[in-house]
Amino acid sequence: MSGSVFGKNFTVSTWGESHGEALGAVVDGCPAGLPLREEDIQPYLDRRKPGQSRFTTRRSESDTVRILSGVFEGKTTGTPISLILFNEDQRSKDYSEIASVYRPGHADYTFDRKYGFRDYRGGGRSSGRETAGRVAAGAVAARLLKEFGITVTAYTKAIGPVAIRRTDLSECMKNDLCMPDAEAAKEAAAYLQQLMEEGNSSGGIVECVIRGVPAGLGDPVFDKLSSQLAKAVCSIGAVKGFEIGDGFHSALSTGVENNDAFRMKDGGIVKVTNHSGGILGGISDGSDIILRAAIKPTPSVSAPQATVTADGRDTEIRIRGRHDPVIVPRAVVVVECMAALALADALISNMGARLDRMIDFYRDLH
Amino acid sequence: MSGSVFGKNFTVSTWGESHGEALGAVVDGCPAGLPLREEDIQPYLDRRKPGQSRFTTRRSESDTVRILSGVFEGKTTGTPISLILFNEDQRSKDYSEIASVYRPGHADYTFDRKYGFRDYRGGGRSSGRETAGRVAAGAVAARLLKEFGITVTAYTKAIGPVAIRRTDLSECMKNDLCMPDAEAAKEAAAYLQQLMEEGNSSGGIVECVIRGVPAGLGDPVFDKLSSQLAKAVCSIGAVKGFEIGDGFHSALSTGVENNDAFRMKDGGIVKVTNHSGGILGGISDGSDIILRAAIKPTPSVSAPQATVTADGRDTEIRIRGRHDPVIVPRAVVVVECMAALALADALISNMGARLDRMIDFYRDLH
Amino acid sequence: MSGSVFGKNFTVSTWGESHGEALGAVVDGCPAGLPLREEDIQPYLDRRKPGQSRFTTRRSESDTVRILSGVFEGKTTGTPISLILFNEDQRSKDYSEIASVYRPGHADYTFDRKYGFRDYRGGGRSSGRETAGRVAAGAVAARLLKEFGITVTAYTKAIGPVAIRRTDLSECMKNDLCMPDAEAAKEAAAYLQQLMEEGNSSGGIVECVIRGVPAGLGDPVFDKLSSQLAKAVCSIGAVKGFEIGDGFHSALSTGVENNDAFRMKDGGIVKVTNHSGGILGGISDGSDIILRAAIKPTPSVSAPQATVTADGRDTEIRIRGRHDPVIVPRAVVVVECMAALALADALISNMGARLDRMIDFYRDLH
Amino acid sequence: MSGSVFGKNFTVSTWGESHGEALGAVVDGCPAGLPLREEDIQPYLDRRKPGQSRFTTRRSESDTVRILSGVFEGKTTGTPISLILFNEDQRSKDYSEIASVYRPGHADYTFDRKYGFRDYRGGGRSSGRETAGRVAAGAVAARLLKEFGITVTAYTKAIGPVAIRRTDLSECMKNDLCMPDAEAAKEAAAYLQQLMEEGNSSGGIVECVIRGVPAGLGDPVFDKLSSQLAKAVCSIGAVKGFEIGDGFHSALSTGVENNDAFRMKDGGIVKVTNHSGGILGGISDGSDIILRAAIKPTPSVSAPQATVTADGRDTEIRIRGRHDPVIVPRAVVVVECMAALALADALISNMGARLDRMIDFYRDLH
Repeated sequence: MSGSVFGKNFTVSTWGESHGEALGAVVDGCPAGLPLREEDIQPYLDRRKPGQSRFTTRRSESDTVRILSGVFEGKTTGTPISLILFNEDQRSKDYSEIASVYRPGHADYTFDRKYGFRDYRGGGRSSGRETAGRVAAGAVAARLLKEFGITVTAYTKAIGPVAIRRTDLSECMKNDLCMPDAEAAKEAAAYLQQLMEEGNSSGGIVECVIRGVPAGLGDPVFDKLSSQLAKAVCSIGAVKGFEIGDGFHSALSTGVENNDAFRMKDGGIVKVTNHSGGILGGISDGSDIILRAAIKPTPSVSAPQATVTADGRDTEIRIRGRHDPVIVPRAVVVVECMAALALADALISNMGARLDRMIDFYRDLH
Repeated sequence: MSGSVFGKNFTVSTWGESHGEALGAVVDGCPAGLPLREEDIQPYLDRRKPGQSRFTTRRSESDTVRILSGVFEGKTTGTPISLILFNEDQRSKDYSEIASVYRPGHADYTFDRKYGFRDYRGGGRSSGRETAGRVAAGAVAARLLKEFGITVTAYTKAIGPVAIRRTDLSECMKNDLCMPDAEAAKEAAAYLQQLMEEGNSSGGIVECVIRGVPAGLGDPVFDKLSSQLAKAVCSIGAVKGFEIGDGFHSALSTGVENNDAFRMKDGGIVKVTNHSGGILGGISDGSDIILRAAIKPTPSVSAPQATVTADGRDTEIRIRGRHDPVIVPRAVVVVECMAALALADALISNMGARLDRMIDFYRDLH
Repeated sequence: MSGSVFGKNFTVSTWGESHGEALGAVVDGCPAGLPLREEDIQPYLDRRKPGQSRFTTRRSESDTVRILSGVFEGKTTGTPISLILFNEDQRSKDYSEIASVYRPGHADYTFDRKYGFRDYRGGGRSSGRETAGRVAAGAVAARLLKEFGITVTAYTKAIGPVAIRRTDLSECMKNDLCMPDAEAAKEAAAYLQQLMEEGNSSGGIVECVIRGVPAGLGDPVFDKLSSQLAKAVCSIGAVKGFEIGDGFHSALSTGVENNDAFRMKDGGIVKVTNHSGGILGGISDGSDIILRAAIKPTPSVSAPQATVTADGRDTEIRIRGRHDPVIVPRAVVVVECMAALALADALISNMGARLDRMIDFYRDLH
Repeated sequence: MSGSVFGKNFTVSTWGESHGEALGAVVDGCPAGLPLREEDIQPYLDRRKPGQSRFTTRRSESDTVRILSGVFEGKTTGTPISLILFNEDQRSKDYSEIASVYRPGHADYTFDRKYGFRDYRGGGRSSGRETAGRVAAGAVAARLLKEFGITVTAYTKAIGPVAIRRTDLSECMKNDLCMPDAEAAKEAAAYLQQLMEEGNSSGGIVECVIRGVPAGLGDPVFDKLSSQLAKAVCSIGAVKGFEIGDGFHSALSTGVENNDAFRMKDGGIVKVTNHSGGILGGISDGSDIILRAAIKPTPSVSAPQATVTADGRDTEIRIRGRHDPVIVPRAVVVVECMAALALADALISNMGARLDRMIDFYRDLH
């Protein structure tokens, strides 16, 4: 149990259900002295907010974050940072069907099997709304990383069969799908429009690039930077696959192709290529960290589906109401935030790696 | 730091370097009363042992495991189980080159950047030999799971471009590549032979099927069963990608296709299909858990490679000696063992999920 | 860092400062199906509330708790339980002195040294107000333990030199000092009255008895039930000493006196005496668990004290305003709650100790 | 379960039973570059070794430690350090009585209740021999602390009613009881001689002083330096009480007495007194850390004792063979080592406390 805490030295606990009074996160282990205001966090939440385009659910939430602790005179104090968002749009609705029938592709059945019952209102804890807490916490991690010149940037790489051909990040904000390729975005929009008319939905791929990471983060065996990122990203609801660097392509490759040659440049060591995706032996190598997440299609489709009732009878369900035909564009910021949380933790955890640096660190503190 | 402990309730700590005196693992949290002998563990180690085919390094190690604690009169006592393997083949060899030159695709450079220096003998802690400790511990986890009717079975799905067309597990033991398809195994062998002649190497894909898992394992948010499996598998040295169920294919799919319908069967609830790979909302759904790992090509290739020296000069390296042209066949048992470790931990961690079951559990213990 | 999470399987994260907007706790790992209402928690908070007697500070806080998540239709869902208390009495006050001068016996100096600055308003995170979050969470743990017939009861054993001579728990609620001995309470009150007139304060001892604990909780080596209780209790601000069973008296004792003989009674094994305080080898032995905490005198005294300014000048400070002349009576419920948290965690963590019981547990879940 | 790992960033896992083949510890998270040889560890083990005086058991063990991993060319590599000690004196002996009868004051009964059976040979995992692993690991922690000018020194403060009147550390090595007071040592020896003749045993108190600790270690709430030390020390088998600074005496004291005044000295802030024992608000204040542990009398006494058999019959037991009439002198080094482990962990964990220092730390690592 107690699987709601992530991280070792920079940790986050999230809490809250889709239709509860509020949702939130507690960030613990954030260094003291970090300038932090609600305005640093809000833009991240706005990016995952519902009701922003024809491709997202109509639920209307301002998702306004409030910092309740851990910040004094505009700076973090080193104590836990409590972040809260109050739910607004919990319109009383008829949940009797969801309560008694298991929606295919959802966690209704597994929650009942694990806990004996569940908060069936809008998916409860398994709702996509749970990610709001991660995003609020991840924004704090990203704010910390910024102080070290580390940036985390994610975007939509593909929606169903429509993949980007170019990566112009300035395009991402210009289209509803967060795609860095205007043309691909148009094609993807048409594809989604078609699926919506059929009461169907689409999956897709999110790509994330982390720049400015110093070499040396991550530990050799179980806590590799790659395995921590894998856990972080695969803990997002709809993620079914994870890649670092060349990922599954490297399975098709050869050593001669796949190895990244080292070369001296401006007095430093650089890799000529980056098939490794910025991590060697589980430790950051100083080049960009590149990862991808495969997102499954929204399980809430209006087309009729065969399923069973909680009391064990075969039946058919038609999911009512308007749902996201694709989760990917809203998942982009969630992937970004989970990656930031893993990085912030690795950045702090690495400080005890070398005696000589520890001695320097403590020299003038006696 | 301290990234050498895996798990929360069923934990393993591994230790040891490629050319140290010994390697080992300490398993903590294994329930008392489990029948356990060295013969339960040895077969797993034998499967990853070097020198077994023309496709693996010639290093000769018997890899004989010894249980030093935690077992009394043939059964686990509930206390830590210490497992040890002594290194035998540490023939004195000239490591001066590896000591001063960074091998592309290896962790030489990142270890030096993180720790300031490294045990350069055969890769030290970052050597594939480190996996012997995981396998010994994973064998204990697998032995525990067996008591619950849970089996974990992995095999080679693809080597480079050669993928299996059929899955006949009885075939796996009959070919050097652990492929459940004799024909594909022949083609893959020819492909590897060709690469070996070029001083090159290949990547591939391992697939793992976990049967008999009760519904309810895993936690909803960060500690999903899928994220724990992702961390476990991505913590294996050469793994660059991870999938659960349909994985990256689900990104191309639609909700109507991808959702698994529920149906009643023999009084129980079953899924008609298994695109989810046995996990919904991070919790096991009772059907087979299916995962895949993408393994990169062996970085040790004899073809010349551009690189740099530790003191910052461009140079060229030719890796001497005989190395595995492919890691995949030996990685199969490692994936199996890491999956078993994650499952054993989830099995124990789930016991506190429901008050009614806790009350039953403690009723007669007062 | 990140030292604000307590427990392994039943965990609590607390957050909040004395003069922030709110304080709270997130309880994770509470089993699903536990009946829980705010009315189960409020009485615990009321017991530590300020302004209840002439011996406590006049700060007026209703300390009304609200459950924001993790409970549905009156029962816990197995997901995180978020508890919040809004601060009400944060009257604007002149903190310039506390901001620039280090109060003896307080954490002002150590916080500045650790974090570089601090929230100086009323002690910030190091204020006794921090314990409100622990108490709210501990009340949930106590509610869980109640389902297993486990009760945790603490009371004042001594205030300064005045110790109880008898233990009549019904008396505790009848006097301001939570002493189970009316006469001793009168003497202690007189002693405190005298100290208050001198602008001085007193220390004391809290004793806690835990009944109904089944044998077998706690682990043999580092996570002994006694060491977990020690950590739990010693993490309370003013605690300077901890005892289990005979504690420091056992140092004066002999084996013949101190050993508890075993005897059969009604078909069960009982101890004739309980010098061990209910724990043998770190594991509960089925008899009452008895522990004590030494509480230091309130550091806020109005008598003048020699100290230094934050910028390094010798000076003198007189703490203004009304402060508790003794913390002990309000610490009683905090000790109770920390003990309950440690017990709840041990109760869940013990479930995986035996294979035979795990097999029973899972038998009908397949 | 899995209670055999201690620490967060500097962790130790111990393993091994009294009469198993070997005992050991795995230290993880030790910074790279620390000079470490077996000769740094052996002296600590020699101090707890049996058979050294008329006051300790005659079991003869050389307790020779071997480092199996984590050290290369005389320095730690940052990877796990595996330490092993082989048991030598496991003379075949008749354990049938211990196997079937519960020894009062021992863990025989609680182990059986928890695990269903136990390794009864010499106490198995609950034997005092388990502390050998802690001492080996603690010696590594002490070696690390030495690099920071931090020393941990423990000694016998009292044996039964005989307490030291002076503290001359040079005396400790001169008497069998590790008392820094020659005269008290003589009296204590006479007291023990008397008890031995009666087949009885004595308890006592160990005191530990930690010098050179920088201000700022420890976290404010649950992971206070004091609570971590409490857990560390109370996890030692026979410890029944713990004190920091004035401990239980502070319960009798008043704020005016107990507060430590601050004063400027040589440009730094010092405390005029040290009632706090070097910790304020859970964080080190730069003065000496002083703690004490109450050790219960050896439960193995040869006098006849009433007890029960494992199958539930009243009986009487006489513990045969020669046992330590007092554990205290051998516990001294164990307390020292547990304190060193807690300090080493706090030293590393504190490095992420301040943004400005993190930025300095990483500035030249990009």
